[in-house]
Amino acid sequence: MEWEGAGQGKNHRVTPILTGVIPPLCTPLTPAGEVDRRSLAALVERTLSAGAAAVFALGSSGEAALLDDAQRRTVLATVVEAVAGRVPVLAGVIDMSTARVLAHARAAAALGADAVVVTAPFYVTPHPDETAAHFRRVREGAGLPVVGYDIPSSVHTKLDARTVLALAEDGTLAGLKDSSGDLNALRRLLVALRERGLHGTFSVLTGSEPAADAALLAGAHGIVPGLGNVDPDGYVRLYEHARAGRWTEAAAEQDRLAALFALTGAGDPAVMGGASSALGGFKAALHLLGVIDCPATAAPLAPLPDSAVATVRRILQETGLL
Amino acid sequence: MEWEGAGQGKNHRVTPILTGVIPPLCTPLTPAGEVDRRSLAALVERTLSAGAAAVFALGSSGEAALLDDAQRRTVLATVVEAVAGRVPVLAGVIDMSTARVLAHARAAAALGADAVVVTAPFYVTPHPDETAAHFRRVREGAGLPVVGYDIPSSVHTKLDARTVLALAEDGTLAGLKDSSGDLNALRRLLVALRERGLHGTFSVLTGSEPAADAALLAGAHGIVPGLGNVDPDGYVRLYEHARAGRWTEAAAEQDRLAALFALTGAGDPAVMGGASSALGGFKAALHLLGVIDCPATAAPLAPLPDSAVATVRRILQETGLL
Amino acid sequence: MEWEGAGQGKNHRVTPILTGVIPPLCTPLTPAGEVDRRSLAALVERTLSAGAAAVFALGSSGEAALLDDAQRRTVLATVVEAVAGRVPVLAGVIDMSTARVLAHARAAAALGADAVVVTAPFYVTPHPDETAAHFRRVREGAGLPVVGYDIPSSVHTKLDARTVLALAEDGTLAGLKDSSGDLNALRRLLVALRERGLHGTFSVLTGSEPAADAALLAGAHGIVPGLGNVDPDGYVRLYEHARAGRWTEAAAEQDRLAALFALTGAGDPAVMGGASSALGGFKAALHLLGVIDCPATAAPLAPLPDSAVATVRRILQETGLL
Amino acid sequence: MEWEGAGQGKNHRVTPILTGVIPPLCTPLTPAGEVDRRSLAALVERTLSAGAAAVFALGSSGEAALLDDAQRRTVLATVVEAVAGRVPVLAGVIDMSTARVLAHARAAAALGADAVVVTAPFYVTPHPDETAAHFRRVREGAGLPVVGYDIPSSVHTKLDARTVLALAEDGTLAGLKDSSGDLNALRRLLVALRERGLHGTFSVLTGSEPAADAALLAGAHGIVPGLGNVDPDGYVRLYEHARAGRWTEAAAEQDRLAALFALTGAGDPAVMGGASSALGGFKAALHLLGVIDCPATAAPLAPLPDSAVATVRRILQETGLL
Repeated sequence: MEWEGAGQGKNHRVTPILTGVIPPLCTPLTPAGEVDRRSLAALVERTLSAGAAAVFALGSSGEAALLDDAQRRTVLATVVEAVAGRVPVLAGVIDMSTARVLAHARAAAALGADAVVVTAPFYVTPHPDETAAHFRRVREGAGLPVVGYDIPSSVHTKLDARTVLALAEDGTLAGLKDSSGDLNALRRLLVALRERGLHGTFSVLTGSEPAADAALLAGAHGIVPGLGNVDPDGYVRLYEHARAGRWTEAAAEQDRLAALFALTGAGDPAVMGGASSALGGFKAALHLLGVIDCPATAAPLAPLPDSAVATVRRILQETGLL
Repeated sequence: MEWEGAGQGKNHRVTPILTGVIPPLCTPLTPAGEVDRRSLAALVERTLSAGAAAVFALGSSGEAALLDDAQRRTVLATVVEAVAGRVPVLAGVIDMSTARVLAHARAAAALGADAVVVTAPFYVTPHPDETAAHFRRVREGAGLPVVGYDIPSSVHTKLDARTVLALAEDGTLAGLKDSSGDLNALRRLLVALRERGLHGTFSVLTGSEPAADAALLAGAHGIVPGLGNVDPDGYVRLYEHARAGRWTEAAAEQDRLAALFALTGAGDPAVMGGASSALGGFKAALHLLGVIDCPATAAPLAPLPDSAVATVRRILQETGLL
Repeated sequence: MEWEGAGQGKNHRVTPILTGVIPPLCTPLTPAGEVDRRSLAALVERTLSAGAAAVFALGSSGEAALLDDAQRRTVLATVVEAVAGRVPVLAGVIDMSTARVLAHARAAAALGADAVVVTAPFYVTPHPDETAAHFRRVREGAGLPVVGYDIPSSVHTKLDARTVLALAEDGTLAGLKDSSGDLNALRRLLVALRERGLHGTFSVLTGSEPAADAALLAGAHGIVPGLGNVDPDGYVRLYEHARAGRWTEAAAEQDRLAALFALTGAGDPAVMGGASSALGGFKAALHLLGVIDCPATAAPLAPLPDSAVATVRRILQETGLL
Repeated sequence: MEWEGAGQGKNHRVTPILTGVIPPLCTPLTPAGEVDRRSLAALVERTLSAGAAAVFALGSSGEAALLDDAQRRTVLATVVEAVAGRVPVLAGVIDMSTARVLAHARAAAALGADAVVVTAPFYVTPHPDETAAHFRRVREGAGLPVVGYDIPSSVHTKLDARTVLALAEDGTLAGLKDSSGDLNALRRLLVALRERGLHGTFSVLTGSEPAADAALLAGAHGIVPGLGNVDPDGYVRLYEHARAGRWTEAAAEQDRLAALFALTGAGDPAVMGGASSALGGFKAALHLLGVIDCPATAAPLAPLPDSAVATVRRILQETGLL
């Protein structure tokens, strides 16, 4: 268990720091498009059995952007209940601006989340100083630790190192989930955190599924892999190898997971967006593995056709999961 | 009056089509950050006095992305009440995905909006076919006419002509608000609408404040200018000149308005984002002109410093508004 | 004739200023990929017969980026010889950086060009001040008037108004070819040029084929339409209507040309780039019209398949050219 | 020595494959802007003394985009002479299109290069199939092995895995220099190369200076670090640690080099482009270290001000190089 106070009910604090594997949970849906609480609880259970150090509900892998507020509340309540205090629950509060994020954050706090995960503002393109002010206001108003969520593919700005360091230094951010894919920048950030004595108190989590070993080698504290919904055991093995300095073994596990990651590309880009393919691939795999009851994704994502599901099945077989 | 049935209370329909000047209303705020209903009503009144054919609440100029749901409802209720059936009220329902937009659309319908204005999905990057499906689901569920909102600077995809034409042809969209700035594409769309016999039933509205005359020359039906908050009379004059074929006079008015548009650049890009400068500029102008009580914008936008307000004042003077 | 001194041999100067229709000449190639001098001379002749005020060799429509230095020299020599002093010859000197552009500019001067057309540096992304310094060095070293070429789709930076105005004011640039498609920015630039008293001495030329009427309404001095290779008469009519204030007629002609512009989209984007489709479309049309002997484009562009050529033929027929 | 046949004069072949540290050599210039052959030879010598396995002339770090053809030839001739057959010499042949690249490639072959390094076409945005055709034509015409150069920050397209794998499989490309910074994609490519049995014959070289250890952990064969001009010994140590499986030591060396990499940010982005800062930083460091005589960069890059040079000096001191 990597989170101090885990197992002690609602006294979790992001101190010392989050480490380990923290899957960003998919949100199983019923054929009618409602949150499938049973499947979600099963997914939580499988994740914790594999050794997840925490879970992240309502992230991008959780289709948070596609769920309305009632669905979001259902997801978070279900996850908090299923986790039952065994590990911390991080809650995504994805929205465009300060007031909207604060509304989600208050709801998350009320539902028992241990921390909120917050992106830069979007729709309106912010200046870095406006992004910093955004995080500060959310931290003040949320009543929970805040993890920064760097995901330029969705919000179209990158959190720059200067901003992140300032927010780490003044305690606004407890950590960073890096989904930018920019490992050069991540490495430089980790070096700068060490130079400032912040590496021990600020949690750096990578969302780079095919190169998590690299982030750990660079000093990242944990992994938040969407693909960890499909193969949590693999990411836990990878993490344990890395923590023990068995880098060759970590890389071999990473190679297998990088091959598995091909399931995110099963959908044809000529007829669907990348999210339809990736999130549809995760859910098709979870369905094929018997974890969730229905592989549906939320509108406006396009469903994976049978041929793509067959590709997912083949990849699961080739990588030893099926 | 350009909207059939205007003045007949709640029986407005986007038929035949929206034309004329339709200001995307700013949302005046109090110093405490709440919606200033009095100032908003005054802004509506000034806009209608100038001859606006309709109003558009909760657009990008209205800081919709920055308001929480309660604030959005307050804005729309205030505008509907102030307009009192004299012209149609369009309501922006800006959000990331189908379920979230539908929630806003139902709220807008309940509050008395005459149509909703809907962007492509964002955060999750959609395929054009997914965008089309999004519009279709919103149209089915909203119970109101839907105007497409093409604003790639905010949502990071452009509505392509093929998609817009299909949605015009099958009646999903009643019109398009084009804030893409791409007048080449707009011209080609208008030509294609004419070729398909759709120009008379599908309303094309330009958001290009400095080149609205060009869009009208190309056959656009109306103008939705953020700058029309500041100078609604100018845009109404421009529109009337264009409608009467007085293109040289229209261009001269446009030139003056293009000079006025410089107030959107009063803020220093080294310390604030473009939205802070533009929306702050609109509000500073409205405050200097005595229309609204307080020039504040919503978080995370940075406030205009005094030097920028002085620039706004100078531009208002040079263009004859102050 | 719009260029002072035209017809007086090598004494052309970009003063007072370039106006009118200035086609960016396609570069006909032989099946073996060499410059087809005969076809190029025929294209020049057809262009001048239609009333072109100048010609622009080695622009983007001329596939300059795809020709090696020897081919570029052949093109320019052929054009200068074919024009024979009847109108000014502008020469594109497209390359990544100052030293490389200067080498092309000296070659162009030696071959008898009247002005060079210069983009911002590319490959290395420049700061605006570096771009300004680039234009100043080229102006000093070239010995010819310099027209700025704003084409962000190719060079991935936009010439901002502040830079262009400074270069207009100090005489570095004699004009601007705007291929940015940003008519909002163009309008604001034209207003700013008027405010500074530069509108009479700095030539603004639009490359926006489907919205050239709009640019002229805004005060642009001329048109540099790639589509003018295919229908020079149409653009000359459009220009003359605009010059005479017959805006409705100009817009009607523009509508026809915007429909014709659809030939640039005949190629399937699933199998070829936009340039292959657009430049292939121009050349297919010129071949179908009997102006050039072979529709081939240069490597690495993909050739238009027969089905796309059939589309081009249909569009030519529908718009009255075939 | 990592290149078969090294030391045997002109019989180098990119077989089996390139491995090790391959610095992309800076191009020292005189104050007058000419190639400083003496300093360039000194830089080569220092690089080889440190244990470079090959050198890469005329890459992005070598300001190839900023040099005219004569300067490029001088650079390559100088490097070939200075290397004197001790290691392979790779030559960048950076240009927009097939014909232009082929002209450079023939010049490079004539001057004694062992391989050419080729980007995707740029200025004209290519379809991936056009990019593949480009590489095939260059391979056929160049008479030298071709290394693909993936540098989307300069050419604005990324070489996708499907294209690279096809070109690896049919022997068009001997290897890839990855300057995309996308280590997720690189990892997936390496896994795919292994799956296809190509990992032993296709050389993958990373240009990611702050995360080279990660690329090596993922299976990359070598490093092409611009920063290796400044600290070739550091990168050789990093490479040797990695090769021996001493990953913790490799990461520690990488951390030091990542801190050193901060010298690329010494220039103020408010007044200069990123290339001016990065390449100016490399050259300022080489000048402070006494390797080259003059830190000048080529137009249109802006020179580093004294304050930035002082920053470079401080960073060199902090990282133990000065």
